[in-house]
Amino acid sequence: MLEIAREGGIEGRSRRYEKRLGDMAGVYRDADAWEAAVAEHGADRLEYWVDDHRYQEGPGALIVGTSTVLPGRMGDEFALTRGHIHEVSDRAELYYCLSGRGVMLMDTVDGQSSAIELTPGKAVDVPGHWVHRSVNIGDEPFVTLFCYAADAGQDYQVISDAGGMKNIVVADGDGWALVPNPDHRGYRVHAGE
Amino acid sequence: MLEIAREGGIEGRSRRYEKRLGDMAGVYRDADAWEAAVAEHGADRLEYWVDDHRYQEGPGALIVGTSTVLPGRMGDEFALTRGHIHEVSDRAELYYCLSGRGVMLMDTVDGQSSAIELTPGKAVDVPGHWVHRSVNIGDEPFVTLFCYAADAGQDYQVISDAGGMKNIVVADGDGWALVPNPDHRGYRVHAGE
Repeated sequence: MLEIAREGGIEGRSRRYEKRLGDMAGVYRDADAWEAAVAEHGADRLEYWVDDHRYQEGPGALIVGTSTVLPGRMGDEFALTRGHIHEVSDRAELYYCLSGRGVMLMDTVDGQSSAIELTPGKAVDVPGHWVHRSVNIGDEPFVTLFCYAADAGQDYQVISDAGGMKNIVVADGDGWALVPNPDHRGYRVHAGE
Repeated sequence: MLEIAREGGIEGRSRRYEKRLGDMAGVYRDADAWEAAVAEHGADRLEYWVDDHRYQEGPGALIVGTSTVLPGRMGDEFALTRGHIHEVSDRAELYYCLSGRGVMLMDTVDGQSSAIELTPGKAVDVPGHWVHRSVNIGDEPFVTLFCYAADAGQDYQVISDAGGMKNIVVADGDGWALVPNPDHRGYRVHAGE
């Protein structure tokens, strides 16, 4: 049995990994804001953490986990995860929002883009072949329950190789807006294609 | 975006199916109690219903859904779903409890058995090769969010061919107990093995 906290975390997890400010070099568009944040808060400040659970081996297995993105901004850009595409790129991934308020930012390698707002009880079934990342647009941790095929793997390099995703999620009054990322140079054709 | 209600139901679903008392012939051990219930409530009484959502086709796709089992008993036995094993039997399935109180009852075809209690926030990642069904042990609808590979399929016949699952979930004071099902004659070797 897995006990899944609304704040994130799984009793019975296989592993936990944490990403800290120092791990996020080059992830946010505003490099000066990131450097200033490291100087102010230290490279060890926790940014997001993931618990996951894998029960079986083999092609039919699922990985179940929680992702918890702490709130914040880097310049105008809201706090986010590195993002990935699956190495076996046709593999879909369910994200179900447990708490907080966020956006699932999604791109295809051939130029489509989508941004779906998630609040508790809302979910997105990210189709295969979509690059995706979680963005926290609220003041509380943004927590999702995720589930995907255990053979999917992750390519975390795809976004940095493209100069970032196609769009950036920025603060806009009390809300959020999507603005084009001028550094985005298109995705390389994915190795798994 | 999928909007998932704690009472079950998905805004954006691909389909809904409903099981009624008349569909449950032979599912409960106490056939007399089932016949009496049909006579009293009618064959159309709703027993459980499932919403699901399938976005993509192909091997990497996921099906996401909710299962809502209404509370009740048939003789001593708590309300339940027909149960199934996946046709592609190595496919796992996540069940995350949204509301109510239930048990995930699980058997392997070679004689292992397990029963895991679920309350909101608890989940079970049913491994491949396990026959499984949901049982409502509470007074409210027992609702789970589920997720599994879209190519998995379901064999709903496996349990009736075995004379029922290995154990039955029965009322025991205010709680529940697992008792051996004397009609269970073991599972046929599954076609997908």
